[in-house]
Amino acid sequence: MLSVMLKMTPQQSEPDPQFILENMFEAVMDNIFLLVLVTLLSVVQNVFFALKVEKECTGQHSKPHSAAFERLSCANRNCMDTYPTFLAVLWCAGICLSQAPAAFAGIIYLVVRQKYFVGYLGQTCQSTPGFLFGKRILFFLSLMCAVGIINHLMLSYCGSDYKEYIQTITKAASALLLLP
Amino acid sequence: MLSVMLKMTPQQSEPDPQFILENMFEAVMDNIFLLVLVTLLSVVQNVFFALKVEKECTGQHSKPHSAAFERLSCANRNCMDTYPTFLAVLWCAGICLSQAPAAFAGIIYLVVRQKYFVGYLGQTCQSTPGFLFGKRILFFLSLMCAVGIINHLMLSYCGSDYKEYIQTITKAASALLLLP
Amino acid sequence: MLSVMLKMTPQQSEPDPQFILENMFEAVMDNIFLLVLVTLLSVVQNVFFALKVEKECTGQHSKPHSAAFERLSCANRNCMDTYPTFLAVLWCAGICLSQAPAAFAGIIYLVVRQKYFVGYLGQTCQSTPGFLFGKRILFFLSLMCAVGIINHLMLSYCGSDYKEYIQTITKAASALLLLP
Repeated sequence: MLSVMLKMTPQQSEPDPQFILENMFEAVMDNIFLLVLVTLLSVVQNVFFALKVEKECTGQHSKPHSAAFERLSCANRNCMDTYPTFLAVLWCAGICLSQAPAAFAGIIYLVVRQKYFVGYLGQTCQSTPGFLFGKRILFFLSLMCAVGIINHLMLSYCGSDYKEYIQTITKAASALLLLP
Repeated sequence: MLSVMLKMTPQQSEPDPQFILENMFEAVMDNIFLLVLVTLLSVVQNVFFALKVEKECTGQHSKPHSAAFERLSCANRNCMDTYPTFLAVLWCAGICLSQAPAAFAGIIYLVVRQKYFVGYLGQTCQSTPGFLFGKRILFFLSLMCAVGIINHLMLSYCGSDYKEYIQTITKAASALLLLP
Repeated sequence: MLSVMLKMTPQQSEPDPQFILENMFEAVMDNIFLLVLVTLLSVVQNVFFALKVEKECTGQHSKPHSAAFERLSCANRNCMDTYPTFLAVLWCAGICLSQAPAAFAGIIYLVVRQKYFVGYLGQTCQSTPGFLFGKRILFFLSLMCAVGIINHLMLSYCGSDYKEYIQTITKAASALLLLP
């Protein structure tokens, strides 16, 4: 019986590092796949915007700087200017706190951006160059980031972990983004 | 002999968390170092583009808006506009599926971008503001992302893992990007 | 006594995967929370820049393309153009080598960018469209990336690990960025 144990324990006691790493990879994917999905959707939207600009540009080759092209180009540039900011807060919020509310806010942002792009084309003057869309969503994602960092510091230095409560509150709060 | 075992088993049975974390860090680096390399190369290229624009701008201080400067500035802006999109799909594809084909596609994208930038300077009109370069590569990387997510979902809900097959196919398919 | 051991060893020998994953998450957060903090600060700064542009734009609705608006818009665009590059090297350097010097360099970059933005508004011509700010910091972060990759390759193929020495040197070198 002892020999059995001696043979058995090393197998059980030393967990296969390969197995742990496989598990680790699965766990990482579990925690980011919604973020990857939102990123993929945003990339598709970017390509859609760029193709719109390209079509307008090559279609009106005779009049290279028409008003319609100017508006399209400006709308595209405004969307592109805020894109890295959006990606940064989306991923930070998703990794630091919880991916589901972050991905939900990201999808709402994409809808708002689509509306902004389409609405911009109907305007007559370039009066909206800034962050006029999605400010509330970016604020929500930044807040998630900040709360995640504060929770991590409290866990490290005070030993108190409120993560589950915070995640529940965040999920409930993300529904408020649907308000017009 | 029992006492030996008693002394021995705890050592083996409780794997040092520090050791696991060290291993984890190594595993993470193993899975991303090619992506980091491509990112670094793209940053060097960005700086090269920016220095070109800067040199043109300060060199022709008397004529601030010459045609050559306009073209350089426009080429640089088009490259910068698609840069976050490229980085996002590169990293998502590399993390979700496999880093080697993603990094290979990334390097081809950098070559295509260099050609685009140099070719743009010889043109006479601003007729190429959109995504005219690297569409095929971005599509390939997006496809890798999507396949990675689908594979993860199938693994989670159906329990079937085709990852190794997919990785082999992806590696073979990435060679097709070399076709002109 | 044997039965005790038999009951005891499996518990100790198979470490709870959930526990390892929890630990893993904590370790990941430990290694990135400074980077997340710097990213959050940079996002706040981006929003500040965008609000400045927006205010200038809507405030002077009668004169849509005044010189002040042109300068603000150009300064904002230059900052936004280099933002993805900055984020990419910041995160790569922080993950590959050590987060504290990377985050420190990131904060200095944000200060330099603020100075650049404010200084740009006082200028009379658009003579600074390129990478005129933070070149030294981007170079430092790129160097950290490269050293991290080289160290990883040496560890994989030669088995020699100089990481601790490199991290100490990097921390000391990051203080040099404070030199004017």
